[in-house]
Amino acid sequence: MQTNHQWLIAGRPEGLVKESDFKWRESPIPSPGEGEVLVRSVYLSLDPTNRVWMNEAESYLPALAIGDVMRGLVIGVVEESRHPGFERGDLVQGLLGWQQYSASPGGALNKLPKGLPVPMTAFMGLLGHIGLTAYFGLLDICQPKAGETLVVSTAAGAVGSLVGQIGKINGCRVVGLTGSDEKCAWIKELGFDAAINYKSGNVSESLQQHCPGGIDVYFDNVGGDILEAVLNLINLRARISVCGMISQYNADQPAPGPRNLANLISKRARMEGFLCTDYSNRAEEAFTAMIGWLMQGKLKYRVDVVEGLENAPAALKKLFDGSNNGKLVVQVGPEEGAAS
Amino acid sequence: MQTNHQWLIAGRPEGLVKESDFKWRESPIPSPGEGEVLVRSVYLSLDPTNRVWMNEAESYLPALAIGDVMRGLVIGVVEESRHPGFERGDLVQGLLGWQQYSASPGGALNKLPKGLPVPMTAFMGLLGHIGLTAYFGLLDICQPKAGETLVVSTAAGAVGSLVGQIGKINGCRVVGLTGSDEKCAWIKELGFDAAINYKSGNVSESLQQHCPGGIDVYFDNVGGDILEAVLNLINLRARISVCGMISQYNADQPAPGPRNLANLISKRARMEGFLCTDYSNRAEEAFTAMIGWLMQGKLKYRVDVVEGLENAPAALKKLFDGSNNGKLVVQVGPEEGAAS
Repeated sequence: MQTNHQWLIAGRPEGLVKESDFKWRESPIPSPGEGEVLVRSVYLSLDPTNRVWMNEAESYLPALAIGDVMRGLVIGVVEESRHPGFERGDLVQGLLGWQQYSASPGGALNKLPKGLPVPMTAFMGLLGHIGLTAYFGLLDICQPKAGETLVVSTAAGAVGSLVGQIGKINGCRVVGLTGSDEKCAWIKELGFDAAINYKSGNVSESLQQHCPGGIDVYFDNVGGDILEAVLNLINLRARISVCGMISQYNADQPAPGPRNLANLISKRARMEGFLCTDYSNRAEEAFTAMIGWLMQGKLKYRVDVVEGLENAPAALKKLFDGSNNGKLVVQVGPEEGAAS
Repeated sequence: MQTNHQWLIAGRPEGLVKESDFKWRESPIPSPGEGEVLVRSVYLSLDPTNRVWMNEAESYLPALAIGDVMRGLVIGVVEESRHPGFERGDLVQGLLGWQQYSASPGGALNKLPKGLPVPMTAFMGLLGHIGLTAYFGLLDICQPKAGETLVVSTAAGAVGSLVGQIGKINGCRVVGLTGSDEKCAWIKELGFDAAINYKSGNVSESLQQHCPGGIDVYFDNVGGDILEAVLNLINLRARISVCGMISQYNADQPAPGPRNLANLISKRARMEGFLCTDYSNRAEEAFTAMIGWLMQGKLKYRVDVVEGLENAPAALKKLFDGSNNGKLVVQVGPEEGAAS
């Protein structure tokens, strides 16, 4: 008899998420009911927002209970279908959780396209929630214009690295903030005009040095002090895309916000939050553009694959100490079995 | 010989602005040069932003130097014109400063219309910067829809009281925050659905009680803790018009911002700053609408007139302790002399 393995939420994390906040469970592989599909997980996406999902308070998704399977975005292969829209071998994506097998209503799954000249991990790193976030969070929320200065935080991360490249494609001067010299070197390779290691030196001074004409667009993944430093340098009618506030996610006491929000007034600036799911119905537009840029060599991404579902809790911490290199995913099972 | 009187900036205020931050000076009445106009001040507008203008740092206008005449918006009568666009008796408005007489380039003055069935103070309380701020800050920045819940801070103030009434005209449920029971009673008279005295009781609980369906639109004049309380209650796609941050203006150390800015993400909400001067070219649209509402009795305003330029510094403090009742102006001289 085959066994399913799952990670459950064992408790609410205090401060930085840790492995003991999760509990490993063996259970039988579920049987799909009428209208359901049995999916075998191949890749599990690890994202900063996972930490938010573990909190007791509801955010943009319902709160999880202690003992629930941890929520997670999964790419998997259909093993058995009792839904007319799916058949064995289909590659699907959905919030299937931190588990090897799941029985999901067909309506909760997206079928991934076949025959694209990209590896399966591209659906995690580019042609999925990461790509939608970068593409629309920059182009729709911020409307960058050629010649404007764009600043991106967590610039070597999955989203940030795409944002910077899409900014370059749109003619912006792009300045990225990241947490190591090695990552600085990588984003310079990607074409960023300047890279700031926010862990060494004074961020405000570095921003001032690399943004001599001020900041027109800020793609914010972190909040906190870096947001404050940026707000001191914004230009008239600056736009700030509020994508994430990773500096806050592990805080027991939420940290105070920037002391200079009043700069929004004198600069007539705008801060706007968004979620990639708001743009699901425009996904084709983004993916078509990004596949084009990928083929032309204008867009690069990298995927940091951690082997084995059992390593997911330890891997999640990498997002918060910055030790991941590119889009962080867990390989839960082999790719084989998907119809190509 | 007639004498001009002026208030100069004597020093940078520390904390709450005080009378000793200003210096009284007698000087000769200036002679207008070629292209200039001699204006006798009738009303001087006192606004929270005056405090910002006294700081050493430049904001949206150039910083003033110690010894400069204090900047201020004035309505006055043309006494002598050496500019072809103006003649003796014209009623004009401009940043003419805290003084009885000024010689100003004609291009820096707006001529006020004649023959409107409103008192001269209406150009201070409604048909000027206050009206533009309320009208466009609400309608253009926030785009309120009928049935939505609008929260306004400093709701009994010059701008806030108009914002609430314009919200009601547009079909919103309007909740106002103000600093006394008497002011609460007044905004209820104006048609606000609910009034919260933020000085008595818990603001978060009061907001929750009076906004059972959450907050769709927030017109923010104060920043600080009230902004944080509002952010906890915003609905999906809420809009926040950042008009002022009066809670910060007298602080020696800028206070931290709200700890819950990440709510902008989960609620896909927008915060946007603006200045009324951005809408100068659309003034006619606003004033036509507001005169109409005034005539129909749908819009009320009140003006708190302090007699005598010598009392301006003491009067300015009223804005920060909330002891003014309506738009605060100083009557610098008699209305007579204006051609009607």
